[in-house]
Amino acid sequence: MDLLKQRIARDGKNLGNGILKVDGFINHQVDPGLMDACGRELAARFRDLGATKVLTAEISGIAPALTTALHLGLPVVYARKQKPITMPNEIFLTLAPSHTKGRTVELIVSPEYLRSSERVLIIDDFLASGQTILGLARLAQAAGATVIGIGAVIEKSFEGGRAALATLGVPIESLAIISDMSEDKIVFGD
Amino acid sequence: MDLLKQRIARDGKNLGNGILKVDGFINHQVDPGLMDACGRELAARFRDLGATKVLTAEISGIAPALTTALHLGLPVVYARKQKPITMPNEIFLTLAPSHTKGRTVELIVSPEYLRSSERVLIIDDFLASGQTILGLARLAQAAGATVIGIGAVIEKSFEGGRAALATLGVPIESLAIISDMSEDKIVFGD
Repeated sequence: MDLLKQRIARDGKNLGNGILKVDGFINHQVDPGLMDACGRELAARFRDLGATKVLTAEISGIAPALTTALHLGLPVVYARKQKPITMPNEIFLTLAPSHTKGRTVELIVSPEYLRSSERVLIIDDFLASGQTILGLARLAQAAGATVIGIGAVIEKSFEGGRAALATLGVPIESLAIISDMSEDKIVFGD
Repeated sequence: MDLLKQRIARDGKNLGNGILKVDGFINHQVDPGLMDACGRELAARFRDLGATKVLTAEISGIAPALTTALHLGLPVVYARKQKPITMPNEIFLTLAPSHTKGRTVELIVSPEYLRSSERVLIIDDFLASGQTILGLARLAQAAGATVIGIGAVIEKSFEGGRAALATLGVPIESLAIISDMSEDKIVFGD
């Protein structure tokens, strides 16, 4: 997606150790027009797969998942990292190691909003190691739901997430694939 | 806003102690069409005030702030509750007591995205005690920016937030005002 790649090239920063700073337009300050365009494109790529729900993880997955869901006309559920008091005691919970946080986080979804009949499209801002997305897939599987596809705004292909997700056997779509961040570079690989 | 009030009346639940469960359409599962309608309405109410940026707090403020910002054509910044590694060491930070969490949370914004020239519209999902919104206003003031308005999706008027925010001297708009949640009721007050 050229609009996104141009923005990453202009405003993204390689902070070293594979860390891409995009907090000026994706995950602290958000450009709503860009997120809407990303959502429209992800929706188009998955429109024919019969999804009934979009699933993401708080916090930075919310913006692209919301716009994707808006363009698909579907509800979106964001997995919580802490159980709110409004959630019932019986929950779906899994643990996912977070590379950028350096620790394991909980991903929690209420059974009220993830049923066995659902066809789930997983959307996140980043596909890196794939661990968060695998966690979301485990939540869907715990509910007896079917994962039908995975979409990411930015994929860091050098972190191996696509291979980690291959066992799910579903289409994986990324709007910008970065293949190399060594030596201060941001190299697009698609 | 009738669409929102009808949805609260149909799907909202009064859990007691002033806690309103709306996690089926606002803050766990999100109805993107409803959020888009709320954002359109909030944008219309503040369109003439010359805002340059929308400010909210993660997590549940993100959806309505994003749709409001989309309809105003402005960037949106969500204050973080933990400092990410992509943020510089010099930050704006304030503490805000969270009634529903029973503890104090940090609200953090990078100075990169909140400048003294900004005219800030604060958007959140709930206006209850007003403490989170007051915290966001302190962050804007710390940056030397000007708060020009406050918008909430749902106001619980019996928690006194509107009075707490009066010192800011800016317009406050809520799309649904709930005046009474005693005895299992959800009474609209506007």
